Amino acid sequence: MLLLAVKAISEANRAFLAAHEIDVVTPDTVTAEQIPEIAISYGWDNRIGEKILAQPHAKLKWIQAQSAGVDYLPLATLKARGINVTNASGLKAEPIAQTVLSYILYFARGLNVYATRQHWEPFTDQYMISELPVLVFGTGRIGQQIAAQIKGFGGTVYGVNTTGRAVPGFDAVYPIGNYQEGLAKARVVVDGLPGTSDTANFFDEYFFEQVNELFLFVNIGRGTTLDQQALLAAIDDTRVRFAALDVTTPEPLPLQHPLFERPQILLTQHTSWGEHANFGRTGGLFRLFEKNVPGFVADGQLTHNVVDLDKGY
Amino acid sequence: MLLLAVKAISEANRAFLAAHEIDVVTPDTVTAEQIPEIAISYGWDNRIGEKILAQPHAKLKWIQAQSAGVDYLPLATLKARGINVTNASGLKAEPIAQTVLSYILYFARGLNVYATRQHWEPFTDQYMISELPVLVFGTGRIGQQIAAQIKGFGGTVYGVNTTGRAVPGFDAVYPIGNYQEGLAKARVVVDGLPGTSDTANFFDEYFFEQVNELFLFVNIGRGTTLDQQALLAAIDDTRVRFAALDVTTPEPLPLQHPLFERPQILLTQHTSWGEHANFGRTGGLFRLFEKNVPGFVADGQLTHNVVDLDKGY
Repeated sequence: MLLLAVKAISEANRAFLAAHEIDVVTPDTVTAEQIPEIAISYGWDNRIGEKILAQPHAKLKWIQAQSAGVDYLPLATLKARGINVTNASGLKAEPIAQTVLSYILYFARGLNVYATRQHWEPFTDQYMISELPVLVFGTGRIGQQIAAQIKGFGGTVYGVNTTGRAVPGFDAVYPIGNYQEGLAKARVVVDGLPGTSDTANFFDEYFFEQVNELFLFVNIGRGTTLDQQALLAAIDDTRVRFAALDVTTPEPLPLQHPLFERPQILLTQHTSWGEHANFGRTGGLFRLFEKNVPGFVADGQLTHNVVDLDKGY
Repeated sequence: MLLLAVKAISEANRAFLAAHEIDVVTPDTVTAEQIPEIAISYGWDNRIGEKILAQPHAKLKWIQAQSAGVDYLPLATLKARGINVTNASGLKAEPIAQTVLSYILYFARGLNVYATRQHWEPFTDQYMISELPVLVFGTGRIGQQIAAQIKGFGGTVYGVNTTGRAVPGFDAVYPIGNYQEGLAKARVVVDGLPGTSDTANFFDEYFFEQVNELFLFVNIGRGTTLDQQALLAAIDDTRVRFAALDVTTPEPLPLQHPLFERPQILLTQHTSWGEHANFGRTGGLFRLFEKNVPGFVADGQLTHNVVDLDKGY
């Protein structure tokens, strides 16, 4: 079976493919004879993709997209040709969830005090994760990964999604129209909302007026979902004790922006997706891809991250 | 059944005891008639303890000590009288393990960079927990709790103990005479050794000479187990990239001590045991105690943290 590696594949991962009798060609080395033989496209390159689809008997059956959204693919053509697509949804869920846990533990265990303290003055009002119930707005891959990590520490985690449908791993899920029920129980709020017209400035003055003693507000969703002035006001009158923001408006923030100047606010500058080995925004793609390899090789089945070609996601 | 609350018991915990038909008296309110009726001493008070043991028909059957070591108790007498002792070993294992995870995530997710950065300059060389195998010296309650948390993040964790006997939750355990096998695989070392004559300055110049690219050295054991000059030398020539120390020699550290002056070193000033609700060094004792209550009430059995009265621990 032949695979076109549009995205680079490491030696170790090539060994995994070889063990499944999958040969690898790259856009630089692929020959005209090999084009119709390609069964898997790992990543998508429009130029070579068109050449493949121009072959009436092309063996292509699986495209692993390098992105969560796949609207740039010729979905109708792919459906007509019986070619399946898997996307990269959740690619960075694990590192982002680890960053969220790092935020919570940073403030909960008092590291914010000790990071800069250069004299001996113990601070002992730490919290356990179990003492800080978390409410996550957004119950997709990232939200679920956060929930799993919180539960691993014996904590409590609530979710908010559109309809309030239950999602495994959350102690309870509330519909976005009634998030207040979850908010009343939470000491940590995680904004993991996608950036749509519905979510613009969702966390605004009205939201923060409902908050009394929030320990920590986290934004790992989109900068546009948060009214930063409203957050600053809530920080300044102590309704919110701490904030950790991975995303902001604008990016980069200018020097002397008020978000830089509050010691209660930690800014990680849109790097929560970072990993050492899987460097870059699509690093770790193989980790998602490989889950489907055994099933695909055995009988052509794909079970993880499969795109509905009619819906486009 | 009567319980003497030498250590304070909260309203919620008193309700738990009431549900098991256990009445509570305190050293201030206990009457001479009640002394021989006391079946459980929650904590130990020498003065009242002597009065109880002076009664030939005292019903005392269980002492919950407020400490890990119990050498201050009259162990031979207790054994002769059929009185069992449970200790407080592992009392702070959960908060200490959470602090250890906070250290690892702090450096792994780049928070050490962002804690003080007041301009926009993304740092993206983060690590996942799975990229930083951990070697824990000490496989008791605290070590096991650390191991469980590391595994919860999909990480790898090795242990070191006296004999190399396997301990659940560790991927492998090495004897202290051959810790090098574990060290070769580790990027994080956690010093959780007790303070004995054998462990004094265990982590010395010789130890750090064997280290090449250690990501993080953690001490949550005893300050005396670490030669701090040897650690500073290893930090300064980059064999060790970061260190997080909860315990030091001396405590408190004087102003301008070199440990305060290295930005690569985080000092949490012997506070890793902190919790918000269970404030103080014996806070959380009831959490250990309550595990034994149902069994004791049912048939006098104690199964958690039971002291061997011959060995004394």
